[in-house]
Amino acid sequence: MNAEIISVGTELLLGQVVNTDTTIVARELSALGINLLYSAVVGDNVDRLKLAVETAISRSDLLIMTGGLGPTTDDLTKETTAACAGKKLVLHQESLERIQNYFNEKHVSENQAKQAWLPEGCTVFRNDNGTAPGCAFQAETGCTIIMLPGPPSELEPMLKNCAVPYLKQGQEWVIVSHNVHIYGKGEAPVAQMMDDLMNGENPTLAPYAKEGECYLRVTAKAHTEEEADKMCQPLIEEIKKRLGDFVYSVDVETLEELVVQKLAQQGKKLATAESCTGGLLAKRITDVPGSSAVFDMGCVTYANEAKEALIFVPHEILEQHGAVSEETARAMAQGIVKRSGSHIGVGITGIAGPDGGTPEKPVGLIYIALSDGEQTWVTKRSPIGRTKSREWHRHCAASQALDMVRRYLDGLPVIAEK
Amino acid sequence: MNAEIISVGTELLLGQVVNTDTTIVARELSALGINLLYSAVVGDNVDRLKLAVETAISRSDLLIMTGGLGPTTDDLTKETTAACAGKKLVLHQESLERIQNYFNEKHVSENQAKQAWLPEGCTVFRNDNGTAPGCAFQAETGCTIIMLPGPPSELEPMLKNCAVPYLKQGQEWVIVSHNVHIYGKGEAPVAQMMDDLMNGENPTLAPYAKEGECYLRVTAKAHTEEEADKMCQPLIEEIKKRLGDFVYSVDVETLEELVVQKLAQQGKKLATAESCTGGLLAKRITDVPGSSAVFDMGCVTYANEAKEALIFVPHEILEQHGAVSEETARAMAQGIVKRSGSHIGVGITGIAGPDGGTPEKPVGLIYIALSDGEQTWVTKRSPIGRTKSREWHRHCAASQALDMVRRYLDGLPVIAEK
Repeated sequence: MNAEIISVGTELLLGQVVNTDTTIVARELSALGINLLYSAVVGDNVDRLKLAVETAISRSDLLIMTGGLGPTTDDLTKETTAACAGKKLVLHQESLERIQNYFNEKHVSENQAKQAWLPEGCTVFRNDNGTAPGCAFQAETGCTIIMLPGPPSELEPMLKNCAVPYLKQGQEWVIVSHNVHIYGKGEAPVAQMMDDLMNGENPTLAPYAKEGECYLRVTAKAHTEEEADKMCQPLIEEIKKRLGDFVYSVDVETLEELVVQKLAQQGKKLATAESCTGGLLAKRITDVPGSSAVFDMGCVTYANEAKEALIFVPHEILEQHGAVSEETARAMAQGIVKRSGSHIGVGITGIAGPDGGTPEKPVGLIYIALSDGEQTWVTKRSPIGRTKSREWHRHCAASQALDMVRRYLDGLPVIAEK
Repeated sequence: MNAEIISVGTELLLGQVVNTDTTIVARELSALGINLLYSAVVGDNVDRLKLAVETAISRSDLLIMTGGLGPTTDDLTKETTAACAGKKLVLHQESLERIQNYFNEKHVSENQAKQAWLPEGCTVFRNDNGTAPGCAFQAETGCTIIMLPGPPSELEPMLKNCAVPYLKQGQEWVIVSHNVHIYGKGEAPVAQMMDDLMNGENPTLAPYAKEGECYLRVTAKAHTEEEADKMCQPLIEEIKKRLGDFVYSVDVETLEELVVQKLAQQGKKLATAESCTGGLLAKRITDVPGSSAVFDMGCVTYANEAKEALIFVPHEILEQHGAVSEETARAMAQGIVKRSGSHIGVGITGIAGPDGGTPEKPVGLIYIALSDGEQTWVTKRSPIGRTKSREWHRHCAASQALDMVRRYLDGLPVIAEK
């Protein structure tokens, strides 16, 4: 099955928005074993959109459109695509009611109501995160067309909950994918270690980079889900064997999710003391719904006085070793355990940049400590030649702290052996 | 001048890499006043690439290609594009020497040397961050073709240092844009208020949504930068007049950046006490380089005990009114001022969801308080019918807190009149 994607929106052509929709859709198509041959971006312009849609539906089996389903007069995707495909738009009463409910009003504006007009005979995809529904239907050419809303927060759940199941229906094969998540080894060395496994046709193996991490996707196709799943398992086991404790999860997508799960299972609590990450670690932990069961407290101690007053970092340590030091990180982790009464405390201190670096303590130097009240471990992150952003340093330091917690909870060496 | 972009690389169609190249190029083209009409992604496949290039050079004045210039056999951009444009490839001796120097070897492999073969008569763009040079030349159709390497760390500097100056040579106009940022009014009502201003041709006005905020972009073109800038000003003034204190900045892109600037200007410090936002507000403030001058301390007090112990919220208030209440938010803001000695304290408490809501205190109910030690203001955010994500509620609550700080620092009513 050959597919293409058309993303609609002038904002994409002005560079105001990064086109993550295409990446999200491309990844799902790849997991379904559908070949994506082209993707294109067209502005909010009827003629150019028409040309793009006509070309696509005459040469491909599947066209996925993203964006341009909203209420404004700029939003032309549905009208234009339906016309190209030889379909009329008809009012979908249930969608209209959902939009009315969304705004808590019986009479929504004509523009808002426009979103409930959909191609005749289509399968409607309910939007649980916004107003514009999506849909799927067949063009007269035989090409299947799927339309999804542009905002990623609406597109992603609709893709997973509606479009993927819709595409699976038509398939005689069931595709099952598992993601093996890795912390502490980069995509390139991981890919090299898996080199001999990457030419398989079923299951397939592909590496993906994630900010400061990577993962391997194992995909198998078979007649039933159980069968496909079973085909993945030996490959997953082989990956785990090769990578050992660098594998942090299969299918739990983030370190924070995993850590919250493990803490809850073990009935333990975590507290955080952050300097250079400035609350990012606490934010990531509390991104996870239900984190309140395992997280009582975090302190963002940016100033030295705050480190002393809130989490008992001794004045002498700050004076002797400076705020960015192994000793301060250690005292922060120990201090937050004492302050919070939690089982585990994490302390992070470093120089996130872009300013504040010195030859001895350059931008990117970050110390991360974990304490359980008895023992304390400290990791030192050093910049290695390349210039990375403030955001990057902060994100990676928070990730490494989470990985240390994961290792501690699993009874592994808290500091990974390289 | 009408342009299009073709990005080459199968990894983009597999969703392994987000196509940021297109965004980076699109933004520069927009700043140059060049209309980008299409952008497309094609895999590493000669036939499909040929089709895409032929279509582009027959309809556009400018084609920018990204990716596929490297040493591997997959890298087909140059050979294919040159053939479509009716050009031969010739060896560029200087580029070959640069590649030899890069590897510190006199005899690089044939694959590496391949990168130094460029279309005859082209302008060569030196690559200071990798091996593959870029270039610019004219196809027989008259279309200008620019080829840039795929890795953003190579593409971005080459674009700015070589391609943009190359494109400016041919231009008689300079384009200037300003963004007017708005908090407290949505894109739709703002667009409605500006309706009569949006049909101008020079300057132009366009509204854009941002997560929970929006902004208006004013763009003018003229013979000099000063002239273009001057043309924008009356429109910016008119927008400000109509929107009053809902406008928070011109060209300062985020509330956190603005708040850090204003605090620094006034020599004031801010401290945060967060419950449901879990560190997000502190994280956003410390996203801003230099924020350490205005931010000493933040507390993430997720548990009631933490609210009592760290920021002195009276036990009776928590017992009588609950953690999610106006009274608790007020006590948190007052408590963090006391704890930190900062001039301004912010307290946030609410229910971010997806669980934990009740009919009286539904998901999305969030109280935000600001205190200066003398006076305290509290805003109540109520969910209005719509289901939004945990992430959304948290982001919007943090934004609203920042807007309250902005208003306080500007001597405006801390709580906006709707």
